[in-house]
Amino acid sequence: MFYHVKELQYNARVSRPDPRFAGLLLEQFGGANGELKAAMQYFVQAFSARQPYPEKYDLLMDIATEEFSHLEIVGATITMLLEGINGELKDAANRSDLMKLLQGSASKEEYIHEAMIQPQFLALSGGGPTLTNSQGVPWQGSYVNANGDLTVDLRSNIAAESRAKIVYEYLLQFTDDPHVQDSLRFLMTREIAHFQMFSAALDTIQPNFPPGILQGDPRFTHTFFNMSNGPGAEGPWNRGQGPWGDGESWVYVADPVRHVVETNGLLKQEIVGNTRTDDQIEAMNRKLSKQRSTEISSVVPSGENQWSAYPQKDLKSPSAIR
Amino acid sequence: MFYHVKELQYNARVSRPDPRFAGLLLEQFGGANGELKAAMQYFVQAFSARQPYPEKYDLLMDIATEEFSHLEIVGATITMLLEGINGELKDAANRSDLMKLLQGSASKEEYIHEAMIQPQFLALSGGGPTLTNSQGVPWQGSYVNANGDLTVDLRSNIAAESRAKIVYEYLLQFTDDPHVQDSLRFLMTREIAHFQMFSAALDTIQPNFPPGILQGDPRFTHTFFNMSNGPGAEGPWNRGQGPWGDGESWVYVADPVRHVVETNGLLKQEIVGNTRTDDQIEAMNRKLSKQRSTEISSVVPSGENQWSAYPQKDLKSPSAIR
Amino acid sequence: MFYHVKELQYNARVSRPDPRFAGLLLEQFGGANGELKAAMQYFVQAFSARQPYPEKYDLLMDIATEEFSHLEIVGATITMLLEGINGELKDAANRSDLMKLLQGSASKEEYIHEAMIQPQFLALSGGGPTLTNSQGVPWQGSYVNANGDLTVDLRSNIAAESRAKIVYEYLLQFTDDPHVQDSLRFLMTREIAHFQMFSAALDTIQPNFPPGILQGDPRFTHTFFNMSNGPGAEGPWNRGQGPWGDGESWVYVADPVRHVVETNGLLKQEIVGNTRTDDQIEAMNRKLSKQRSTEISSVVPSGENQWSAYPQKDLKSPSAIR
Amino acid sequence: MFYHVKELQYNARVSRPDPRFAGLLLEQFGGANGELKAAMQYFVQAFSARQPYPEKYDLLMDIATEEFSHLEIVGATITMLLEGINGELKDAANRSDLMKLLQGSASKEEYIHEAMIQPQFLALSGGGPTLTNSQGVPWQGSYVNANGDLTVDLRSNIAAESRAKIVYEYLLQFTDDPHVQDSLRFLMTREIAHFQMFSAALDTIQPNFPPGILQGDPRFTHTFFNMSNGPGAEGPWNRGQGPWGDGESWVYVADPVRHVVETNGLLKQEIVGNTRTDDQIEAMNRKLSKQRSTEISSVVPSGENQWSAYPQKDLKSPSAIR
Amino acid sequence: MFYHVKELQYNARVSRPDPRFAGLLLEQFGGANGELKAAMQYFVQAFSARQPYPEKYDLLMDIATEEFSHLEIVGATITMLLEGINGELKDAANRSDLMKLLQGSASKEEYIHEAMIQPQFLALSGGGPTLTNSQGVPWQGSYVNANGDLTVDLRSNIAAESRAKIVYEYLLQFTDDPHVQDSLRFLMTREIAHFQMFSAALDTIQPNFPPGILQGDPRFTHTFFNMSNGPGAEGPWNRGQGPWGDGESWVYVADPVRHVVETNGLLKQEIVGNTRTDDQIEAMNRKLSKQRSTEISSVVPSGENQWSAYPQKDLKSPSAIR
Amino acid sequence: MFYHVKELQYNARVSRPDPRFAGLLLEQFGGANGELKAAMQYFVQAFSARQPYPEKYDLLMDIATEEFSHLEIVGATITMLLEGINGELKDAANRSDLMKLLQGSASKEEYIHEAMIQPQFLALSGGGPTLTNSQGVPWQGSYVNANGDLTVDLRSNIAAESRAKIVYEYLLQFTDDPHVQDSLRFLMTREIAHFQMFSAALDTIQPNFPPGILQGDPRFTHTFFNMSNGPGAEGPWNRGQGPWGDGESWVYVADPVRHVVETNGLLKQEIVGNTRTDDQIEAMNRKLSKQRSTEISSVVPSGENQWSAYPQKDLKSPSAIR
Repeated sequence: MFYHVKELQYNARVSRPDPRFAGLLLEQFGGANGELKAAMQYFVQAFSARQPYPEKYDLLMDIATEEFSHLEIVGATITMLLEGINGELKDAANRSDLMKLLQGSASKEEYIHEAMIQPQFLALSGGGPTLTNSQGVPWQGSYVNANGDLTVDLRSNIAAESRAKIVYEYLLQFTDDPHVQDSLRFLMTREIAHFQMFSAALDTIQPNFPPGILQGDPRFTHTFFNMSNGPGAEGPWNRGQGPWGDGESWVYVADPVRHVVETNGLLKQEIVGNTRTDDQIEAMNRKLSKQRSTEISSVVPSGENQWSAYPQKDLKSPSAIR
Repeated sequence: MFYHVKELQYNARVSRPDPRFAGLLLEQFGGANGELKAAMQYFVQAFSARQPYPEKYDLLMDIATEEFSHLEIVGATITMLLEGINGELKDAANRSDLMKLLQGSASKEEYIHEAMIQPQFLALSGGGPTLTNSQGVPWQGSYVNANGDLTVDLRSNIAAESRAKIVYEYLLQFTDDPHVQDSLRFLMTREIAHFQMFSAALDTIQPNFPPGILQGDPRFTHTFFNMSNGPGAEGPWNRGQGPWGDGESWVYVADPVRHVVETNGLLKQEIVGNTRTDDQIEAMNRKLSKQRSTEISSVVPSGENQWSAYPQKDLKSPSAIR
Repeated sequence: MFYHVKELQYNARVSRPDPRFAGLLLEQFGGANGELKAAMQYFVQAFSARQPYPEKYDLLMDIATEEFSHLEIVGATITMLLEGINGELKDAANRSDLMKLLQGSASKEEYIHEAMIQPQFLALSGGGPTLTNSQGVPWQGSYVNANGDLTVDLRSNIAAESRAKIVYEYLLQFTDDPHVQDSLRFLMTREIAHFQMFSAALDTIQPNFPPGILQGDPRFTHTFFNMSNGPGAEGPWNRGQGPWGDGESWVYVADPVRHVVETNGLLKQEIVGNTRTDDQIEAMNRKLSKQRSTEISSVVPSGENQWSAYPQKDLKSPSAIR
Repeated sequence: MFYHVKELQYNARVSRPDPRFAGLLLEQFGGANGELKAAMQYFVQAFSARQPYPEKYDLLMDIATEEFSHLEIVGATITMLLEGINGELKDAANRSDLMKLLQGSASKEEYIHEAMIQPQFLALSGGGPTLTNSQGVPWQGSYVNANGDLTVDLRSNIAAESRAKIVYEYLLQFTDDPHVQDSLRFLMTREIAHFQMFSAALDTIQPNFPPGILQGDPRFTHTFFNMSNGPGAEGPWNRGQGPWGDGESWVYVADPVRHVVETNGLLKQEIVGNTRTDDQIEAMNRKLSKQRSTEISSVVPSGENQWSAYPQKDLKSPSAIR
Repeated sequence: MFYHVKELQYNARVSRPDPRFAGLLLEQFGGANGELKAAMQYFVQAFSARQPYPEKYDLLMDIATEEFSHLEIVGATITMLLEGINGELKDAANRSDLMKLLQGSASKEEYIHEAMIQPQFLALSGGGPTLTNSQGVPWQGSYVNANGDLTVDLRSNIAAESRAKIVYEYLLQFTDDPHVQDSLRFLMTREIAHFQMFSAALDTIQPNFPPGILQGDPRFTHTFFNMSNGPGAEGPWNRGQGPWGDGESWVYVADPVRHVVETNGLLKQEIVGNTRTDDQIEAMNRKLSKQRSTEISSVVPSGENQWSAYPQKDLKSPSAIR
Repeated sequence: MFYHVKELQYNARVSRPDPRFAGLLLEQFGGANGELKAAMQYFVQAFSARQPYPEKYDLLMDIATEEFSHLEIVGATITMLLEGINGELKDAANRSDLMKLLQGSASKEEYIHEAMIQPQFLALSGGGPTLTNSQGVPWQGSYVNANGDLTVDLRSNIAAESRAKIVYEYLLQFTDDPHVQDSLRFLMTREIAHFQMFSAALDTIQPNFPPGILQGDPRFTHTFFNMSNGPGAEGPWNRGQGPWGDGESWVYVADPVRHVVETNGLLKQEIVGNTRTDDQIEAMNRKLSKQRSTEISSVVPSGENQWSAYPQKDLKSPSAIR
């Protein structure tokens, strides 16, 4: 259940209207890397985690709730940056004044002229925020990544926080309103904090690489196919010991076209760069399958199920408490 | 600022898994008339209302917050209806069991077989909800209607609640799980309650018809163009006194093709079915323009602006309190 | 069957090209609240109504046809506002002149410079309209609401007309071309007229509240959950007698978090604010179910079916005429 | 202006309900190659053609109008194939019967069971058509191709008719209802007829190749780059005389990687396979630029403009008539 | 398998940054008629052709690969046109300089100011290309037409090349950078070359009209319905001998409304304008069905199947070679 | 420039057709985490990296090219799993056989019956792959994350590979065809290998945390807001030393509502959990701004620019070589 607190989490203020920056800021309201995306991603991920992993559920829901609170800060800032437009549009019988502004002859409120770059503020929303990115593309559920596996989902979140952080960094360069800069800096910083939380949470799940359950085929985990001609870059991503695991090192296939033909489409590929055998891998697959499926099936009831207790005195769900 | 309460607003329970109904229920999670649409619509509308109309803001945010709480109930129910899938998928080394289920030979867990109709639960979300409708179409920001005018927005909300209500009514016919029916009936009923709240709120804004500021051109407000051949239906929508206003009655244009040619594309149309003059309408336009634009401009500052006070002891925003 | 009349329903004219306003006007051509949305919404709704409710079908199709005619007016206006661009683009061998315009040095045709704000006119449509909104977002079928129930669909239409009206009102403030203003005022006024038609039609269906068939659960129809802290607004939407029905009054839950815990997630909620019993509601559900399903099943054949007669001398479909 | 004729263009009938085929048939209602796409494509293209090419405008609008009439036939057929669902859903108090059907135990109306494959008919549209394709993806304005040049647009239409034809051909294989087959065969045949009309119309515009105005660079118009290794197919598309123009023949570049390096990224490419000089091409560009831009600018007024006359006695627009 | 050659197919260069033209050029990067659309369309079509029609597969894959190479040229050009932005954004601590540019006071790098029209370069991509069209709409899989029939697919490709050609023609008019013009002219010319290749390839498939297998119903293949009032255009598309086939001529239905009523919705329509009988058509349908289905089924194995040989010494797939 | 090698990178084979699994496998062809998404993401990211970071460019393009090669493997597998459908559809004159299959009475080819679950294979693509996910949703450019900063982009790629890996893991559980399992295991393993490559590459960029340039505000980098009531989970994500940096430890705000009010919306928040001062942070911002902007501006020319040399003997671009 959600509850609304009338105070914003951060004291958002603006020094003056600025419809052009309001348009750019939509990127964090209804954009692919914005606050709604973050809030919904963690919220949707949390459902699968609720019963088997209640601590992670609590983390995901706390951050999701903070992101909704950030969405509110962004929306409030956009609205304040647009103030004036809504009121002007209500003066519908006196079109001529607005027209003068649009033709650039006016002075103090020429910001309406700038709002033309974001026509939705004039023709659609009447001077309020819209659930779109900075170019008017509506927010989409496909921005949300939730795959039902915490070793994957937490990595999706780390990347999402990285993108949100850089977008705030870019946006900070396009306003010189100190109040707005303060709010953006707060929001940017929280992406860093969340990044750290998700990283720490991922670290508590062991093993977490590769993500999911199944190990890779040892024939192909450490091969680099040089898929281009001419000079090739060398680095720790294709030469020397592989970044994870003892005894693992990169195998560099300089001419993959020839290699593929010679190995009958890799069917005859041998294990290289890797001391793990098929048997070891199969054993690992079975062990992790058992462990993770038991973690879930041991607490998720197969019959009647209830989501929350009243009051919820424990992190666990009622069926697990019983 | 939002706050998460660990107890669901309604005690959602399921009697047993049912992935097919989980798929249908997505319509209320990520569908065009679902809970997220409702929550986001009222949330987005609320920003424009915050400063000039704080009572309406409070109503919109309270209902938005309740809709987020309903979204949580729907997601919790879908997750419980899918329980089992997530755990089975983690048993990744033992594919053969799952395959048997898919080929229909199994018994007690044949529900996984049914889940094939919603492939995203198997191939994408790993047994959790997805932010899509019942056919996998991602939720979109374009579902949200917010036009910066309460006489319009509240009507959008009345219609949105109507659609949400009928979808719950349809869904109720496709489950016989009494716990799920209870939850759906609660959710359906709240749409009715919200419908009533929005209707009552609209009624406090006078005049509210036509929506917005400008009156219609009296030449065309009461004309019905019979745009089809043969027998035509008669009803209060095209004959007799018009539904609003004294002295207004419908004018039925039986042959609009001829009428359009004869009036030079309606340029020579006279005022009919209506006693209002152009002057009266212009006066009304000016009066309402002044009233509404003043309501807004009198409380929305043109310079520095702050969204909330700490604590927020008043419905008004700080700049209006000052 | 549709037929095209070469005369526009309204004599659309422009005084001069204006590509910037052409871009804004796309909101009514391919936007979420535009003419195509309206036309397609009523057209799609009409199919379900055809056999059981032929009078409503006739109304829906007449208005849908008028909206297609309005779409044509909007498209014609956009095209005339863009005149010049298409011809200039054909002069492809003389790029230099066009470039000069773009660099702002030219005079009389600087409107091409303005067209850069809407790049699709230059790079995609070659100076014609596009099926997008004012920001280039393509029109989508998801704009259309059609739920197979007239008590819902007519309310969706009332809201759709409200939104279309306010968008025309906003647009009217961004052109001072008197011919274009005339066309927009006509189109805006027709939205008002349609609003009235749909309202009158809804009124002929009794009962129409709640929309659909099922009554709400009396425990929850009149409860207001105060989902936020601090000062709360009071109004007819949460205090006093409820807006519909004798003996019904709002129940204000000031602290929903505590209330939910105390009622075990509302399971122990009593009927409040309402004198209707569960039995009365069940009886109403059964009565309305029987009435509405009979209205439909009595005229919709279960076997062979034919849509129209030749000629169609009656509003009813042939199978109902037989 | 459009007018609705109550009789369908083709006498659509069904022998019995079939919700599964109704779902497939949505491909022609709201699919990428369906009737709405065709109707809207020709309708949108027609605007640019109205004043300079009134004969082509008339052709485009006549076919667009016929496609709207076909959309109506498809919608009527889908609705009749779904008959029963809408009525059953209204019997909302008697859920148990519908549930039995869904569990497969019922007999004569098991078609509702089949409708589960298309959940939108149950959970969203209440048994009516939806503006989506057969998988629930909403129709989109981006399906429409209109580029403001008839030598391009007519080719887009020829291809669109080809796709619509093959989709009807596929659909015909999934119903054995003779009435539905008749309707589909009619609709499929009309795509062939329209294909022929557009081809004949394209043929009246000379020259029409290359489409648009500008000639190709003679260095690159007749070169085939063999972009893959191993055996290469030979055919009139890469060997022998080119398909258009005397003295033009294909130049086959067997090893494009080497060729690109040797020609400094094709900058040193000579004219091959072609006797046309740069001067000839420049002259052609200028000639066609002048011709086509004059065709347009000679009839499109730069100032005041009017779309239609009352009555429209001539194919030309009023400003051209004057 | 794909291989990347470090040299661009064409030596793309720019004379100076130009973010505004970079924005327009996105139309060919991520637009509906751009290089990615072309590449993906031919690539997707190629799969169905691989086994039954290996020559056509080779053609489709060669052109698809060239289009990917063109996509790279377009992306490289956009990046070079944006150079400077990415570096400036990294100077994140010195916001003030960038702000000055945005306020128009700066001189040499005012192009950043222009980039505001394409906000994604600033707020999202950090100065690189985005997979959108010139208005920020993301590229979509629905742009791709692939229907599993070469007589259809090749026509889709001819139309696609026409549209790509005209878009380059339009774009050429908005840059005066000679290097960029060179690259665009090369790319435009290749669309012409591909157009010719697809036309020649279509010509080798006989018969190819109508596309697909089934002939049209002779009652409706040569009928023109005059769907509008007033003056009607005459041309080879509705009068005289039809464009294909001996003994076929257009039948002009001047008043389709009356005609439809008189023929009972065309059910009583006789064969007109056509000497082909139903029997001839049925025979043709059977003959072509047998021919085309045999072409495919004779080489596509019903059991085990392998895509490529190692090495692939033949155009045919291994199962066909065997 | 790309080049196509006729041999697949992996020798893809199928044992028998299986349209149902073909439908699921679309998730990796046109789904949000599929091969096209990966290929396009790295391809688009590579453009910004080309000139300043040629080694990273080489890595990104090599992996992008391998992903295109994987897309080909997936498409080939889907096509082979659908074999039979395309040929059957060409036998268009003998509809009856196909109908029998659909009604479930047939035996050996009942897989066509199963294909009904994916109607696009029957009604749209004619038995070939479609550029959609497993539910028919078209692929979208918005799946691609490219933000012009390698510390962000490489993290997006690590997450993308994680998601692709888990989707293959899920898919592996729904086929028992050993050939298909082999191909999927190869593809899944390569996601692991790429994950490692991107991780190693990220590690070579120092510092890379926080991503981008700007450091966080020390007041907010180490604060955990407990946004929910009742029991709260404790873990390294909100207690003890923070995961990165000496002297940094989490500050747990147990009651954020009160805290926000008391700090005047966090404006009075002190630096906590952190020994870094504002000055240190500002210095770090300036240092990193200078370093990174110089890395880029030193090699990206402000004037004429050329993408590749002929031949390209060096990783650097020609302007940097000069």
